[in-house]
Amino acid sequence: MKLRIINPNTTHGMTQTIGEAAQRVAAPGTHIVATQPDAGPVSIESHFDEAISAVGVAEEIIKGERDATDAYVIACFGDPGLLAARELTRAPVVGIAEAAFHMATLISTRFSIVTTLGRTGIIAEHLLEQYGFSQHCRRVRAAEIPVLDLEENSDAALERIIAECQRARDEDNIGAIVLGCGGMADLTETISREVGLPVLEGVTAGVKLAEALVGLGLGTSKVGDLAFPRPKRFTGQFEHLSDWQPKR
Amino acid sequence: MKLRIINPNTTHGMTQTIGEAAQRVAAPGTHIVATQPDAGPVSIESHFDEAISAVGVAEEIIKGERDATDAYVIACFGDPGLLAARELTRAPVVGIAEAAFHMATLISTRFSIVTTLGRTGIIAEHLLEQYGFSQHCRRVRAAEIPVLDLEENSDAALERIIAECQRARDEDNIGAIVLGCGGMADLTETISREVGLPVLEGVTAGVKLAEALVGLGLGTSKVGDLAFPRPKRFTGQFEHLSDWQPKR
Amino acid sequence: MKLRIINPNTTHGMTQTIGEAAQRVAAPGTHIVATQPDAGPVSIESHFDEAISAVGVAEEIIKGERDATDAYVIACFGDPGLLAARELTRAPVVGIAEAAFHMATLISTRFSIVTTLGRTGIIAEHLLEQYGFSQHCRRVRAAEIPVLDLEENSDAALERIIAECQRARDEDNIGAIVLGCGGMADLTETISREVGLPVLEGVTAGVKLAEALVGLGLGTSKVGDLAFPRPKRFTGQFEHLSDWQPKR
Amino acid sequence: MKLRIINPNTTHGMTQTIGEAAQRVAAPGTHIVATQPDAGPVSIESHFDEAISAVGVAEEIIKGERDATDAYVIACFGDPGLLAARELTRAPVVGIAEAAFHMATLISTRFSIVTTLGRTGIIAEHLLEQYGFSQHCRRVRAAEIPVLDLEENSDAALERIIAECQRARDEDNIGAIVLGCGGMADLTETISREVGLPVLEGVTAGVKLAEALVGLGLGTSKVGDLAFPRPKRFTGQFEHLSDWQPKR
Amino acid sequence: MKLRIINPNTTHGMTQTIGEAAQRVAAPGTHIVATQPDAGPVSIESHFDEAISAVGVAEEIIKGERDATDAYVIACFGDPGLLAARELTRAPVVGIAEAAFHMATLISTRFSIVTTLGRTGIIAEHLLEQYGFSQHCRRVRAAEIPVLDLEENSDAALERIIAECQRARDEDNIGAIVLGCGGMADLTETISREVGLPVLEGVTAGVKLAEALVGLGLGTSKVGDLAFPRPKRFTGQFEHLSDWQPKR
Amino acid sequence: MKLRIINPNTTHGMTQTIGEAAQRVAAPGTHIVATQPDAGPVSIESHFDEAISAVGVAEEIIKGERDATDAYVIACFGDPGLLAARELTRAPVVGIAEAAFHMATLISTRFSIVTTLGRTGIIAEHLLEQYGFSQHCRRVRAAEIPVLDLEENSDAALERIIAECQRARDEDNIGAIVLGCGGMADLTETISREVGLPVLEGVTAGVKLAEALVGLGLGTSKVGDLAFPRPKRFTGQFEHLSDWQPKR
Repeated sequence: MKLRIINPNTTHGMTQTIGEAAQRVAAPGTHIVATQPDAGPVSIESHFDEAISAVGVAEEIIKGERDATDAYVIACFGDPGLLAARELTRAPVVGIAEAAFHMATLISTRFSIVTTLGRTGIIAEHLLEQYGFSQHCRRVRAAEIPVLDLEENSDAALERIIAECQRARDEDNIGAIVLGCGGMADLTETISREVGLPVLEGVTAGVKLAEALVGLGLGTSKVGDLAFPRPKRFTGQFEHLSDWQPKR
Repeated sequence: MKLRIINPNTTHGMTQTIGEAAQRVAAPGTHIVATQPDAGPVSIESHFDEAISAVGVAEEIIKGERDATDAYVIACFGDPGLLAARELTRAPVVGIAEAAFHMATLISTRFSIVTTLGRTGIIAEHLLEQYGFSQHCRRVRAAEIPVLDLEENSDAALERIIAECQRARDEDNIGAIVLGCGGMADLTETISREVGLPVLEGVTAGVKLAEALVGLGLGTSKVGDLAFPRPKRFTGQFEHLSDWQPKR
Repeated sequence: MKLRIINPNTTHGMTQTIGEAAQRVAAPGTHIVATQPDAGPVSIESHFDEAISAVGVAEEIIKGERDATDAYVIACFGDPGLLAARELTRAPVVGIAEAAFHMATLISTRFSIVTTLGRTGIIAEHLLEQYGFSQHCRRVRAAEIPVLDLEENSDAALERIIAECQRARDEDNIGAIVLGCGGMADLTETISREVGLPVLEGVTAGVKLAEALVGLGLGTSKVGDLAFPRPKRFTGQFEHLSDWQPKR
Repeated sequence: MKLRIINPNTTHGMTQTIGEAAQRVAAPGTHIVATQPDAGPVSIESHFDEAISAVGVAEEIIKGERDATDAYVIACFGDPGLLAARELTRAPVVGIAEAAFHMATLISTRFSIVTTLGRTGIIAEHLLEQYGFSQHCRRVRAAEIPVLDLEENSDAALERIIAECQRARDEDNIGAIVLGCGGMADLTETISREVGLPVLEGVTAGVKLAEALVGLGLGTSKVGDLAFPRPKRFTGQFEHLSDWQPKR
Repeated sequence: MKLRIINPNTTHGMTQTIGEAAQRVAAPGTHIVATQPDAGPVSIESHFDEAISAVGVAEEIIKGERDATDAYVIACFGDPGLLAARELTRAPVVGIAEAAFHMATLISTRFSIVTTLGRTGIIAEHLLEQYGFSQHCRRVRAAEIPVLDLEENSDAALERIIAECQRARDEDNIGAIVLGCGGMADLTETISREVGLPVLEGVTAGVKLAEALVGLGLGTSKVGDLAFPRPKRFTGQFEHLSDWQPKR
Repeated sequence: MKLRIINPNTTHGMTQTIGEAAQRVAAPGTHIVATQPDAGPVSIESHFDEAISAVGVAEEIIKGERDATDAYVIACFGDPGLLAARELTRAPVVGIAEAAFHMATLISTRFSIVTTLGRTGIIAEHLLEQYGFSQHCRRVRAAEIPVLDLEENSDAALERIIAECQRARDEDNIGAIVLGCGGMADLTETISREVGLPVLEGVTAGVKLAEALVGLGLGTSKVGDLAFPRPKRFTGQFEHLSDWQPKR
């Protein structure tokens, strides 16, 4: 199967980190294609960054559909453009926030999230509400590091994340920790060792969930609100979307 | 005060309908500027249409900031890009779905929604959950008419909407009906007369809420998760956003 | 329009404070009538005080109906008698707790409440639940000052409220603060300046929401559970209510 | 023990019905005092009726305190004035709506309510939310009979209630039915026999819960928000309440 | 009436403690039969202990049915096997966790739980969710004492429980405390005196609720999901259950 | 990896059906061991059946631990003994109800459940609440067929299930259907073809989720409430459990 993992920001180093993390857990028959949009923010740290990045996510799905893709993973913890992406394909699409939440509830009864900046915590809260996991998550915590520090200043970033995870372990009455950023995809083992709790993140979880769905012959339902969008005209810089036709 | 009402789709006729409805309820000192994005879908009937339209909404906020705007209304029932828009300005930003919900709870204890297509009902459901109004809304109903039929086929559309509103009145145990589309902004009076219930919609409600916030000296909080986005580089077709500076 | 703002307690000084705060934000065409019941508690600090005050609120609505009132605001943070008041009139009726909550969610994603006495916190909690705002409110805090201290001991009271607001800002991860008492209607600007966050209260918010509803031609739904009460006999000191007839 | 059961309306016949129903289930040592306010509505069918009746409920508690009362039951399905009543005494106070809900969840996993008028359904919905029983109640139904028809037109009323209970049994997937009016206190056996389901109501349930609390040595907590109200001045027709002193 | 109170663990001393506590509050006509399973864990401190103990609970119900039992109480704070037990009898069955929760909400608006080991807190959380009391419980606390220390090391245990209850009183903004273990049935008075708050536990509460249900003529609904189990074959060590016939 | 799939009932034919369904979707390296308890009910159709079956589930985990098992699936739609099972092992344990719910939310926004007997619907409702999926599930439906009819009367059973699924598709506004019984594990393809919607069930979903967890190196958290049970004495027929030692 061909799995397209989409880094919604445009920082190539992060796409690589994500791609490598995905590769590490991929099943033998899974071919990982790690991509990023042609246009968009270099990191996603606000509702605004997210809104812009959702366009790139959709474009990457459209490219993926021309490339016989079997499943998609959206590799930003806000799951930007997730439902839009699902409309564009029969293949399964998994967001890394939801992936991490699902997996966390299978190995623990309560978890906490450790994310980058405090201001993005609300995005996680809204997702927890929409997905139904609010009562499973004890607390959304932030290490207060900008996303790109994970690339450019990784030792200091790691230290802060570990410190926050230790506080979560000691104060939150939890069984597991979810790391709240696609850029933390390579850190779970190190942190889990330091903290003594299972530590999850969504890139790897998303890959395995996507494989699981494909293995079950399941794809996005085309009945109801995730059906292909009705064809229509788009104007201006989005005019090319008018011609888009779903792969039936 | 200058109020910018943004029709997130690119159908000029709908922008006009919305602008006129806004004008009808505007206070004497309110100057209505009805706009639409330069680029995007001609109607919004899916998560995908919404995701694309959010870019145009953000661009219209940015334009508005250069134009000394005092308040914004986002005139599509999915409130696309609402939180992103709030990040970009100190002025208040009101979505028409939330506006209608708030007002409906002030005049009734339970309401139903009548929207265009059934597939967009889930968008309303998610908003009700996020805003906290799920228990106030008895049912999300659809007249099953495409959005542009409101422009191009308005008599037939009106008939179907009225019929659905009558079913809501007879079956749902409600005190009011919320119309679930910006394109229905001119229909409340007619429908209310036919159905015998208060009928609300969000364009007019949004204008009055925006005026109310300005009258209170309140604008979007710049503390916490609605603070201005951190400046950063955008690439490709979004590169111009790298230069964006908030109006302090 | 004639807006009757009802202070549910019988302390004239507080009625004046409330009336002046209302006047300050009223639109040019809004005529504010600030009233208080003929009978009832001098302050409202318990469920019991609230229950008694609801009678006076209802009486003030009945008086207002004879006085061609266009809208009502109930100016106590527990919204005493709100649904009863709505039954008695076609005009809109807005409670100041709900008014503040609605407005707070339009400018922030999460807020805290700072009220007078801790024992009234439960009233706010119940309202948050009923209105649907529980998840938007991080915490209900109390400055532990009796209500009348706002009148009689205002400097010390202000100091304690500011201190509690600062704790809310520092500990609660919020974008705005709601002041939980009608008697705090004149304090928002001072506190907001001290604390550096938007600070809302319901008297002014209620006036603007009432104006907004009137501007939209919306009044309390007379279909369903807010219809005029069925005429019936009242005995004893409430006998005069037997003769009451709604203004059709 | 002396148990004061308060019919919040002023219809003597209904007070008798309630008193007799209470007597039928009272334990040997329980002395039932069935009372009604000196003033108030002859039936309770609206938020307004409820608000007025709450004063009478409070007055009856105050009388009861002078009469060495060990426990109170408030015998109207809206539980009017319940929290206010609790503030006024160390004795337990039980509302009949809550009593019926508690008992219903002990013998079934899901129940429906059959009340008098549809317009009072919202009162039951709000109570279910506040008490935490929303998910246990499948549906709030109304037989659409005025409360006093239970006294004056009892055969026709009974027929309609039975018919509605049968619909509940056949359509709602429930294990029990809660009758939603104090005036139905004598109907459970007849209806249960006709419908073939356990049928509960709150007058009898309230008596047994009050006895249970007294048997456990438990009374209303005087720590926190149910502590005695702070002493204060009341004006006008409520002036006599200024002198009120709790029985310590 | 004959009330069978089932200690789900197999420690005889605890059965005695429970039986004596039950006896102390039982009404004159109530005959208490305190039992324990023939087989199972000596204490219940995990999901696993609970699962095993549920078999013993069911066996005790079956024995009780042969013994003309009028009501049952399951005396472990996790309410193990409660719904299974209800299926096996027409008599009412009350769990001590639910009993304590119900009673706590009748005398306070918010309570906290103090249980034995932190690891059992999740069981209480799940019950609060299922029963609908999550919003009424501020916090689930643990004194971190093994259950059998209540028997074998009772002074030290009591000290720790009191200390935790004092923290609850000082930090949780509550009106009452629920003790979260059947083995604490004899401690409420001592702790209440030390802490100055009403302190409840479920053994005594369960007895009084069971008496109340019997007094109302109410038993477990045999319509719907609590009907007698369909007769079927059981294999192996459970083969004897194949022959089981409900007492009609 | 060695995956032990436990049919909690003792009907060998159903264990085979389940094992074959598991085998069909298993990854190349997955060795499926399909087992059933030595003792217990031949089908699970009540809370009572479930309680008894949980013992067998636990025993099967204990056997699995001696057999170097890498992951477990509990193949009954009530997820009997799930949390107990998790306590007994470091390996991941997945219930088929949760598995189906998780997968359903990844391919649709709303789903319905079609189960066997109406009386087991409440079990699904309780699980939806505990897991957080209540808002995702539109309706729990029953085909009203006894579980063993799936084995012994499979054509008639299939017909009824298909009919109920068609009603779900036509009435429930959903994107997918979850089959609510382990015995339906071989029916998804047939039904999906007939009904035109994605149809999921939990045996296959559970296998893929278990593989996913193992692929991620994740197992049940041994920190907090899923830690190994404290060692203790069991009496009677459960005495052998006293000797149990976790595989560290």
